[in-house]
Amino acid sequence: MNKLQRIQQHLQQHNIDAVFITTPDNVFYVSGFLSNPHERLLGVMVFQHAEPFLICPKMEMPDAVAAGWKHEVVGHEDTQNAWDIVKDACIRRGVSLQTIAIEKDHMTVARHEAMQAQFDTATFTAFDAQINDMRVCKDAEELHKMREAAKLADFAIEVGVANIQEGRTEMDILNAIESAVKAKGYAMSFETMVLAGEKSASPHGTPGDRKIQRGDMILFDLGIIYEGYCSDITRTVAFGEVSEAQKDIYNTVRRANEQAIAAVRPGVTAMALDKIARDVITEAGYGDYFTHRLGHGLGISVHEFPSINGANPYELQVGTVFTIEPGVYKADVTGVRIEDDVVVTEDGVEVLTSYTKELVIVE
Amino acid sequence: MNKLQRIQQHLQQHNIDAVFITTPDNVFYVSGFLSNPHERLLGVMVFQHAEPFLICPKMEMPDAVAAGWKHEVVGHEDTQNAWDIVKDACIRRGVSLQTIAIEKDHMTVARHEAMQAQFDTATFTAFDAQINDMRVCKDAEELHKMREAAKLADFAIEVGVANIQEGRTEMDILNAIESAVKAKGYAMSFETMVLAGEKSASPHGTPGDRKIQRGDMILFDLGIIYEGYCSDITRTVAFGEVSEAQKDIYNTVRRANEQAIAAVRPGVTAMALDKIARDVITEAGYGDYFTHRLGHGLGISVHEFPSINGANPYELQVGTVFTIEPGVYKADVTGVRIEDDVVVTEDGVEVLTSYTKELVIVE
Repeated sequence: MNKLQRIQQHLQQHNIDAVFITTPDNVFYVSGFLSNPHERLLGVMVFQHAEPFLICPKMEMPDAVAAGWKHEVVGHEDTQNAWDIVKDACIRRGVSLQTIAIEKDHMTVARHEAMQAQFDTATFTAFDAQINDMRVCKDAEELHKMREAAKLADFAIEVGVANIQEGRTEMDILNAIESAVKAKGYAMSFETMVLAGEKSASPHGTPGDRKIQRGDMILFDLGIIYEGYCSDITRTVAFGEVSEAQKDIYNTVRRANEQAIAAVRPGVTAMALDKIARDVITEAGYGDYFTHRLGHGLGISVHEFPSINGANPYELQVGTVFTIEPGVYKADVTGVRIEDDVVVTEDGVEVLTSYTKELVIVE
Repeated sequence: MNKLQRIQQHLQQHNIDAVFITTPDNVFYVSGFLSNPHERLLGVMVFQHAEPFLICPKMEMPDAVAAGWKHEVVGHEDTQNAWDIVKDACIRRGVSLQTIAIEKDHMTVARHEAMQAQFDTATFTAFDAQINDMRVCKDAEELHKMREAAKLADFAIEVGVANIQEGRTEMDILNAIESAVKAKGYAMSFETMVLAGEKSASPHGTPGDRKIQRGDMILFDLGIIYEGYCSDITRTVAFGEVSEAQKDIYNTVRRANEQAIAAVRPGVTAMALDKIARDVITEAGYGDYFTHRLGHGLGISVHEFPSINGANPYELQVGTVFTIEPGVYKADVTGVRIEDDVVVTEDGVEVLTSYTKELVIVE
């Protein structure tokens, strides 16, 4: 059963007349068409039995067909009300829409009001959990793409480490990494981070013209897209000799990363994994400096379901890919984060990223 | 009167108790703090009289302060319900929230439902038009930044044109452009496009490993961020001798661009500008191949209010920055788009981008 058929089956079982999928990554998942429509309307409407359609800006219609969408494509121009066109495509199918599922985590209040105005007798229900459930287990083809994306992430870290030199800035090194990735024909999956010294202690910091110097630890956080699927890796390395205090943080984070990975298996909860890593860090005395969740789901989106945090009782399933990325951010010593991409297997875990976690000291 | 005071005045005049601003670009506009919170909650709550607050992920709190936010910052962790924290910050101020403004074009249905659950006696109203109105007229400092961003866009086109060589791919040239921009310490404002030959006829195409060859026209669409403000330029150049048919499309698009620019002055409508450019293209016989609006507002966001399309009666005001970017996409001949960034002045128009619009023929 393909993805559209699975959605149709869900609609039939739950007596939902149609679902309108609007998150660009979910549109890609069901249609193969990846597009960032900015403020313009993009969506796929799936019915219980009638032919699904994809609506997109008129100028992108050929791209949607080229991407492999086999059903109707309807286009809208900037001067038109796209919701009139959605309504018209539904009317042409002769289906009555009394219950419509939408993605409440994506659809804006304004769009929802516009949709309610068109379908004024319909009730609306959420489809977010259903599409998350579909996407959370990667099939063999998806896992192949994610392994390739992870290999490219390892390569990018190698390039970054090879480019550490006295006097270079964070941006110089970032530039070397992105050039090497682009030269292979790939794009980054998010804004690359190269943070040195005290800046490594800002979990969401911005690379700049800070010159690296011996005694810095340098944090790389980056990812690459391979055929629509993302990787996301973090490594922290030392430039020259670093202090015992820096090494102690490194070793603590590494243990947290490795112990959490060792615990991955089908049925373990997200919160249990978070606790394993957090306990390691807390016992070492750095609990206050691990200020974020352990990780997040990974796939078409860099951040996707499930969230690996201390309050999430979700039980991991075979085929789920997610990150394990404990960190300690102590501004007067260093920041360290070590992040791997892992997939739950029947037996336990497969780690997709493979750059070493031994402390690399660049001389 | 600063931005927060203008918002407070609006709330007082319209009897709105508070506004919760959540679009990251609008949070930057009012607070100076630019952050992409992904799925996490980021927002600024402004009241009629009480002290405003900014809510963000706990780990980003120091960044918000460093960015210059002078009022309270409240943080939330991944294990907390961020809406409880919003509610608590309101209660601590002792204000009664009966009418709350939100950004309906940004807030999702799920967040709105969560907010309604916390503020269950409140009614909600839209603030989108008000914040658009504030942002649409750029002040002197903003215009300075946009002029700098436009100069960098000119520079990037120069780099791209200088890198056109037989046998290179679109990605090679793109890579050269982005490396040169990053070496200066700047980031692109959106995904750079370099499209050659028949691919130039896809308005939203993706650069790839197509090798450029003599007789191609090559379309560059790119922008740079300067201190939070974006530029956006398109130029189309010829590689070697191109056909009369290609030149005719180029000259038509250039005339459409120039005639629309010449008509810019305070009070002219967006739709009137669109019509001027469209008429030039239609009279030349290419009307069916100009498949998008003439342009869009530009500033902190690459696409912002107002939309310059044929159905928008909005009257342009002094200080509004927007793009003028007519295009013709004829797959069997070529695609051409020529885009400039312009600002409405008392006297008429200032064009921020200045790379030549003479047809450049790279030998």
